[in-house]
Amino acid sequence: MSHSKDIDILVSEVGPRDGLQSIKQTMPTDMKKKWISALAQAGLTEIEVGSFVSPKLLPQMADCGELVKHTLTLKDVFVTALVPNLKGAENAFQAGVQKITIPVSVSEPHSLSNIRKTHAEVYEEVNSIIKLRNEKYPGILIEAGLSTVFGCTIQGVVTENEVLTMAQRMAQLGVDEIGLADTVGYANPVQVRSLFKKLKQEVGNLAGSAHFHNTRGQGLANVLAAIEVGVTTFDASQGGIGGCPYAPGASGNIVTEDLVYLLESMGLRTGIDIDRLVEAREWLKQGIPGEPLYGFIPDAGVGKNFKYAKDQ
Amino acid sequence: MSHSKDIDILVSEVGPRDGLQSIKQTMPTDMKKKWISALAQAGLTEIEVGSFVSPKLLPQMADCGELVKHTLTLKDVFVTALVPNLKGAENAFQAGVQKITIPVSVSEPHSLSNIRKTHAEVYEEVNSIIKLRNEKYPGILIEAGLSTVFGCTIQGVVTENEVLTMAQRMAQLGVDEIGLADTVGYANPVQVRSLFKKLKQEVGNLAGSAHFHNTRGQGLANVLAAIEVGVTTFDASQGGIGGCPYAPGASGNIVTEDLVYLLESMGLRTGIDIDRLVEAREWLKQGIPGEPLYGFIPDAGVGKNFKYAKDQ
Repeated sequence: MSHSKDIDILVSEVGPRDGLQSIKQTMPTDMKKKWISALAQAGLTEIEVGSFVSPKLLPQMADCGELVKHTLTLKDVFVTALVPNLKGAENAFQAGVQKITIPVSVSEPHSLSNIRKTHAEVYEEVNSIIKLRNEKYPGILIEAGLSTVFGCTIQGVVTENEVLTMAQRMAQLGVDEIGLADTVGYANPVQVRSLFKKLKQEVGNLAGSAHFHNTRGQGLANVLAAIEVGVTTFDASQGGIGGCPYAPGASGNIVTEDLVYLLESMGLRTGIDIDRLVEAREWLKQGIPGEPLYGFIPDAGVGKNFKYAKDQ
Repeated sequence: MSHSKDIDILVSEVGPRDGLQSIKQTMPTDMKKKWISALAQAGLTEIEVGSFVSPKLLPQMADCGELVKHTLTLKDVFVTALVPNLKGAENAFQAGVQKITIPVSVSEPHSLSNIRKTHAEVYEEVNSIIKLRNEKYPGILIEAGLSTVFGCTIQGVVTENEVLTMAQRMAQLGVDEIGLADTVGYANPVQVRSLFKKLKQEVGNLAGSAHFHNTRGQGLANVLAAIEVGVTTFDASQGGIGGCPYAPGASGNIVTEDLVYLLESMGLRTGIDIDRLVEAREWLKQGIPGEPLYGFIPDAGVGKNFKYAKDQ
């Protein structure tokens, strides 16, 4: 979504999708609704509620349509979902989602392993989805989520050139936003600065969010680097749940709680209330019992010096 | 120590001191020696081996003198120790330490709670230590480790002015280095950039190391910010053990393993071999059984893309 005037950085919560899809147990729909509502009450204004994939493949995501409908009833929340193909896009559009993210692996071996598609087949799919949106669902935003952009556990090195070529291609097809994802936790701050800078040069205002994993503990350092080159939207997941279930060794999104602390303590307004955000974890604890949750702020608290950016 | 020509950033290992002093059980001296040797073999060139305090106060540190002697036999390691007072300094000098760090709380309430001294008494103590060094032990370096510089759990806000005044005072007394410590994990990158920049303006080349805690998960983001303003020495602790035993709610140094990964992946040479560093954890596991160890790299590995900075 476009940022409201009242925030500097948009924190996009992907836990209900990226988090819950990578956990074996399925969080009951009613719990998910309560969790999403709690996130919205904490001030999260963009929530990826699920993935429109075959329930045979990911039964944890079977209630995605219902969650879209629920989340649309909440105040000030922009409702997004992941879609891997045309069929998923159609379902998402029909459910009333406001934005879809199509994952596109820059590493072709990763794409084949993840969604069994070559680059050519992915371009075709993206093209069909955009055509469908243009004809029947104007106004719904389409983001290409470029994955494995900082390297891939299968391909190894992924060059900037490969990423920028793919970004250019997505722009030509007509997507509204292009985000970059460190799918397997390989990114370092030097790479991050360089690639996001070049992405902006390549596709201008289509340059979108940064999606970092914390696999190697470098997530927030990468966020800082991205902020330095003008990135203003960050995906994160409450409790750090998630990662990419298909990338061996990959685990853990950056933790929403710790990200919000970083941003607010630096004087960057997020519009999010950390106490309420931490309270929302209770639904996760109940909804996916026994699952490990991450993050420092829930245990350490914000400390005596903390001030919200809007009050600084 | 002054950096060798072969490294860009000096990682100063403080685990044997900051880590082990905050753990209730005492690591056997023989184990400590093996751990320190393993750290040296991994390429650590500065190790704080202990604290010269009363063994009644911290029995875990009673073997500090013996560890200094052992570490002096290792190749290419600069041997440092913490000393809280003149008596500790004399013991450290006699043991043959190459550098001492005197902790100096900028927050006077923290100083009173931690070492039961007012600022005036601390100045007096530092003065006596410098006099002793000058008269009897020339060549041994003295660092003032300014603590609580980004805030204090007792005092709350600590102003930049208070920090710089204290730094100026230490420079006048004749210390060789002035480091800044985020004792309770309050620092954010904006503060870090500002304060280290001003420290350099205030005391020039006496400006020394950054000592960050990871209490709120912000440690490596703060490292990145400090690098941006020219800091080239970072304290860290293997397995993230440690923190400040006297600061309520404080815990966890930044993790040496994850710090080295950050630096090397950014192309900054540390001279440290990560595989050997991870191997050195085994001594910690054996020496302080059951104690939680932190860090992502030991579990995740360096990944397929990782290259050492010297080979990039």
